[in-house]
Amino acid sequence: MKRNGYIVVCFFIIIRVTFVFAQSNAGAGKLLPDIPGYRTLCCDFHMHTVFSDGSVWPTVRVEEAWQEGLDAIAITDHIEYRPHKDDMTSDFNRSFSIAADSRPNGVVVIKGSEITRAMPPGHFNAIFLQDSNPLDTELYMDAIQAAADQSAFIFWNHPGWRQPDTKPIWYEEHTELFEKGLMHGIEIVNDREYYPEAFQYCLDKNLTLMGNSDVHSPIHMAWDLDGGEKRPMTVVFAREKSIASIKEALFDRRTAVYFEKKLFGHEPFLVPLINQCLQVKNVVADEKSVFVEIYNCSFFDYKCMIKPVEGISAPEKLTFYDGKKAGFTVKFTDEVKGRFVLPLLMENVLIAPEKGLFVEYVVSAKTIMEGSH
Amino acid sequence: MKRNGYIVVCFFIIIRVTFVFAQSNAGAGKLLPDIPGYRTLCCDFHMHTVFSDGSVWPTVRVEEAWQEGLDAIAITDHIEYRPHKDDMTSDFNRSFSIAADSRPNGVVVIKGSEITRAMPPGHFNAIFLQDSNPLDTELYMDAIQAAADQSAFIFWNHPGWRQPDTKPIWYEEHTELFEKGLMHGIEIVNDREYYPEAFQYCLDKNLTLMGNSDVHSPIHMAWDLDGGEKRPMTVVFAREKSIASIKEALFDRRTAVYFEKKLFGHEPFLVPLINQCLQVKNVVADEKSVFVEIYNCSFFDYKCMIKPVEGISAPEKLTFYDGKKAGFTVKFTDEVKGRFVLPLLMENVLIAPEKGLFVEYVVSAKTIMEGSH
Amino acid sequence: MKRNGYIVVCFFIIIRVTFVFAQSNAGAGKLLPDIPGYRTLCCDFHMHTVFSDGSVWPTVRVEEAWQEGLDAIAITDHIEYRPHKDDMTSDFNRSFSIAADSRPNGVVVIKGSEITRAMPPGHFNAIFLQDSNPLDTELYMDAIQAAADQSAFIFWNHPGWRQPDTKPIWYEEHTELFEKGLMHGIEIVNDREYYPEAFQYCLDKNLTLMGNSDVHSPIHMAWDLDGGEKRPMTVVFAREKSIASIKEALFDRRTAVYFEKKLFGHEPFLVPLINQCLQVKNVVADEKSVFVEIYNCSFFDYKCMIKPVEGISAPEKLTFYDGKKAGFTVKFTDEVKGRFVLPLLMENVLIAPEKGLFVEYVVSAKTIMEGSH
Amino acid sequence: MKRNGYIVVCFFIIIRVTFVFAQSNAGAGKLLPDIPGYRTLCCDFHMHTVFSDGSVWPTVRVEEAWQEGLDAIAITDHIEYRPHKDDMTSDFNRSFSIAADSRPNGVVVIKGSEITRAMPPGHFNAIFLQDSNPLDTELYMDAIQAAADQSAFIFWNHPGWRQPDTKPIWYEEHTELFEKGLMHGIEIVNDREYYPEAFQYCLDKNLTLMGNSDVHSPIHMAWDLDGGEKRPMTVVFAREKSIASIKEALFDRRTAVYFEKKLFGHEPFLVPLINQCLQVKNVVADEKSVFVEIYNCSFFDYKCMIKPVEGISAPEKLTFYDGKKAGFTVKFTDEVKGRFVLPLLMENVLIAPEKGLFVEYVVSAKTIMEGSH
Repeated sequence: MKRNGYIVVCFFIIIRVTFVFAQSNAGAGKLLPDIPGYRTLCCDFHMHTVFSDGSVWPTVRVEEAWQEGLDAIAITDHIEYRPHKDDMTSDFNRSFSIAADSRPNGVVVIKGSEITRAMPPGHFNAIFLQDSNPLDTELYMDAIQAAADQSAFIFWNHPGWRQPDTKPIWYEEHTELFEKGLMHGIEIVNDREYYPEAFQYCLDKNLTLMGNSDVHSPIHMAWDLDGGEKRPMTVVFAREKSIASIKEALFDRRTAVYFEKKLFGHEPFLVPLINQCLQVKNVVADEKSVFVEIYNCSFFDYKCMIKPVEGISAPEKLTFYDGKKAGFTVKFTDEVKGRFVLPLLMENVLIAPEKGLFVEYVVSAKTIMEGSH
Repeated sequence: MKRNGYIVVCFFIIIRVTFVFAQSNAGAGKLLPDIPGYRTLCCDFHMHTVFSDGSVWPTVRVEEAWQEGLDAIAITDHIEYRPHKDDMTSDFNRSFSIAADSRPNGVVVIKGSEITRAMPPGHFNAIFLQDSNPLDTELYMDAIQAAADQSAFIFWNHPGWRQPDTKPIWYEEHTELFEKGLMHGIEIVNDREYYPEAFQYCLDKNLTLMGNSDVHSPIHMAWDLDGGEKRPMTVVFAREKSIASIKEALFDRRTAVYFEKKLFGHEPFLVPLINQCLQVKNVVADEKSVFVEIYNCSFFDYKCMIKPVEGISAPEKLTFYDGKKAGFTVKFTDEVKGRFVLPLLMENVLIAPEKGLFVEYVVSAKTIMEGSH
Repeated sequence: MKRNGYIVVCFFIIIRVTFVFAQSNAGAGKLLPDIPGYRTLCCDFHMHTVFSDGSVWPTVRVEEAWQEGLDAIAITDHIEYRPHKDDMTSDFNRSFSIAADSRPNGVVVIKGSEITRAMPPGHFNAIFLQDSNPLDTELYMDAIQAAADQSAFIFWNHPGWRQPDTKPIWYEEHTELFEKGLMHGIEIVNDREYYPEAFQYCLDKNLTLMGNSDVHSPIHMAWDLDGGEKRPMTVVFAREKSIASIKEALFDRRTAVYFEKKLFGHEPFLVPLINQCLQVKNVVADEKSVFVEIYNCSFFDYKCMIKPVEGISAPEKLTFYDGKKAGFTVKFTDEVKGRFVLPLLMENVLIAPEKGLFVEYVVSAKTIMEGSH
Repeated sequence: MKRNGYIVVCFFIIIRVTFVFAQSNAGAGKLLPDIPGYRTLCCDFHMHTVFSDGSVWPTVRVEEAWQEGLDAIAITDHIEYRPHKDDMTSDFNRSFSIAADSRPNGVVVIKGSEITRAMPPGHFNAIFLQDSNPLDTELYMDAIQAAADQSAFIFWNHPGWRQPDTKPIWYEEHTELFEKGLMHGIEIVNDREYYPEAFQYCLDKNLTLMGNSDVHSPIHMAWDLDGGEKRPMTVVFAREKSIASIKEALFDRRTAVYFEKKLFGHEPFLVPLINQCLQVKNVVADEKSVFVEIYNCSFFDYKCMIKPVEGISAPEKLTFYDGKKAGFTVKFTDEVKGRFVLPLLMENVLIAPEKGLFVEYVVSAKTIMEGSH
């Protein structure tokens, strides 16, 4: 009797949950365009659930990622720190397992864990794990080795967190991990902190640039998504959208980091990316000038300076708002040229701490449309 | 050794969680003004957490409520339906207990449970419980009686849910509950469904009007809060902001229901409420007309028609946008009067299904400021 | 002396004006995608300036159009009604001439005039004029003939404006104009009014569908552009973006009308347009279901019903939000098919009054990407 | 015949224009609260219309001001620079006269003119004029004297505009004007430029702080009002909302300047203003802490630092978002006190260049409400 009653009830309520999810069946489109040879994947490799000290069920992380337009996430609950453990008794694999079994929506879900020790060496994420349980060890080195034994990708989390002036300190412990090949990347961005020194470490030591949200609460409580904010992301240039390709790209250091309307990365990937993001169109106006339109198809604004060019008069500064076109007039001293170069210094795309990316935009005859009035 | 290591780690991470919460330390101001004799409290008496089939930790419900400007909530996890129970083994009191222990922020947290049976009689919420465990019974009547034994306020949830055309059906079981005094209110709104028949039931049978979110996911996934949506709410006219006063008001039927920019309720409370929400100011323009400004200090738009008045020419329709003033010119056939009445028929404030509230706005000399140009 | 002083001053101020315009150098991207064989141009063929009863200088209309993403506009000041004429003494060609000389920005500017008489016959716009002055005649028929002598495209403006219930009345005068070939289209939308009867007239009599803003004030005062509103527009399917092509398209009736998140038009153009606006992508989930993503690259939301299909279970209703992807799961009774059809009934795309467009969406193997978790 | 036809037509169109204005009958509420002894009026004393080099009809300026919540404006078309003068032949008084005759809406409209000369001395506004025509003189000193003869308030406009690094230069000409009592204030903000040196001049020489938009285009083209921007404003602390009171306040230097979410002014007015803008409420939590809520009733965010206080632990930094409450916990080392002080250093309220306002917030027993959970 009771059993039958339960079955009916369950059926009702499962439907209801589905309905509630249906309220939120709208998600962001592709955040960044692909570049020649690679897909551009927006990823977040650091986040928590109720299974450690987070406050959401693991399936929420997958839904949030889809809605925000992310391509891949890693579930990385703490090994050592589980304040809800009196209420939740499952093992270290459980949160990933629930996330991976949620309604498929194209988001790649990667298994990870956070090895959580006092500084030094601080916190480390190991991702692409098969089994998180062996990481529950007394010594941190044993935990990291257990991850490495599974061919995990291991990175140093928020290296400047709670350091004086949030400046990372490179301890002997880090040298040891680095030299043993047990540290493959560093978070240069975590939550709302950016560590320029960590950016420089990565450039100097050939480590992978990582930037992640480390979100504990529902994502909307941490970031004002509807007000135009986005969580920090690791941008991965991968051959395809798959776990294997993402892993390959991370070990190959093909990443950039997005954080608060800024992009940090390497010139060979950022130049083609900006070229895809900012699409030049133009209109011949008359004998002495060209009206240029540049459309920004990415999800954030680019601010740049146009460097002076001989024979051309253009605005000194330009902002390309996301999802909008910028329009401006270029005047020529002599005759209008069918092909000319606009040298743009990007203020919020950085290839080293305080060093903006420089891009030469070619405006050529191909993009010139017939004028209209 | 290990123990010491843990203590340090814990300290670090507790601070971190605090920091994450600090990101979201902004909340909506008072949603609706008080009325003479009562405080106007915006409440949600139906919601779930990971302890039944919801997807957030109980503390999230308290934070969400504060951010959205709510005054009180009830945690009402299912008794019978707990799909996460393999992972979470605590008893029926646990989710409230965690919510009640979260950082105090002025939100009143009420203990409740949802008695979850197939229709009839459907689902019922019991709130103001002392102990939820006795509600875990085989027969629904025993569960409801167990709630009543604790002087709980008991209401019928989403009566039209999964009924043909979402129309509630009043079964014999409901008659029995009603006649035994075991049903004190009905949700005329639940999630995105509004049941006009239930509104009529409440008017006919003197039951309390309830409207609640029944939210399972993080609130931002269910409602586009930043796009101007609000969850459904039960508006309670209470002597003070306290559990005892709210309980008294519910049993005394001093409520209204907010749902998708509409308000449903009783004239004696809605007339003074609208008079507080829409604040008249005006400016004498010249001998024949008055420029009137009406400021809407509530959180949603009011749409109304101005009925024709002898000797006055005013717009036929007006929208009072939330947080804005509406401005319009009233022309007089004869002389400008120092005191006149604007009869407003509110389109989105209903005192019965399809029956708009009628309010007579007095514009008097007291509110007339000196003109300026 | 004085002259020299003036020259310096003028130079300063011209620069200043340029700078002020530079504040607003951001505009909407392409509003609607092109369809096979035609460019999709968003146009507004009815607007006023200070030269009749509008309140902006003609150049503002060109800037506003660019910012809003329009492709073409017509300046159509009244011939007969010029309340500012004591201050402004220029002839009927002047407002277009100023607009056409403004900074080229790719917006096509068309010369027009509004012939403004009491009903019948009401107001008519003549566009693609060479000279507006000959339209200043005593009899309306002479004015319309003067426009026709210049091969103008002539349409009836806001036919239901100030008629009982805003319902258009077809007078004898309209029959005469129609039979003489002096009426080529009708505004089925003007400002905030939509005239379904005029839509039917156009279908019955083979007249061109027109929808225009008739804006008098700055556009932001009439429409809440930043809140997501757009002015009404005539969507033109033209061979290219030029005055000649737009004129050809109008005489050939290749138009649709956009108004308040609805589209009115002809099936042969709307089917390919919707196919371009809603881009299907999908992800195989498992043996029994497919997760489908549809991206809406147009500027407004589409609401539709998915009609029942044998062997497939899909949501009944879907909203495709602009600039977002919708995601939903399609379940198969038997096996997942590499190619299937989703029959969509569009609620806000109308091919006759009250008749929604029906589109069969083919989801084929080509669009199936590899699943990920 | 013709005359009759015209009359009918005119009637139709006048109604139409009224209708178009009705679309925009929503305006911002009071921007800033009054302070003890004074009304706080938000004003813009510098703007242009089609009668000089602006691009809107004068009535638009009055409507825009009302919608944005301004209390008073001055129409200040150029005397010397009138690029539209071939089309518009009226005299220098005409633009004010049209603005003043527009639909009364409570906005105070002040007559002004801009005396427009090359630097030095640059541009000067004279406001509270009776007749603008006498300002059309060959020598600038004559023009300024003509304004002074009418008891005008005269201020130096955008003193750093087109100066190297936009730094104002104080020429001999300015000394002469200042010593003759012909310069009463300086724009420390104009359009998007802020001149800290001019702020210092005002402090040193006892001149009135002015900040104005100098808007030429429709206001929405210059400022992203719906995205949260506001034009620059001169905040006037006046005895009442009238021309005479505003004039008195300006000569008495009772002003502050709003610009891009910053406020510049004098301590005696800003301390009471901030005390009105930020309203303290709080909730006793338990024996060791108080949860404090501060509601920001003004129209922009305040950022501040809380200075360390003996025996109290509070957040170091706080942002008070406009129209929202900020919530935070104050912990006490010993016992909770019924009255304590929070010392706030405001980062975006400046009483001298680079010098933030310091306010001591008293949280007293009166504001302590009973806790709730």
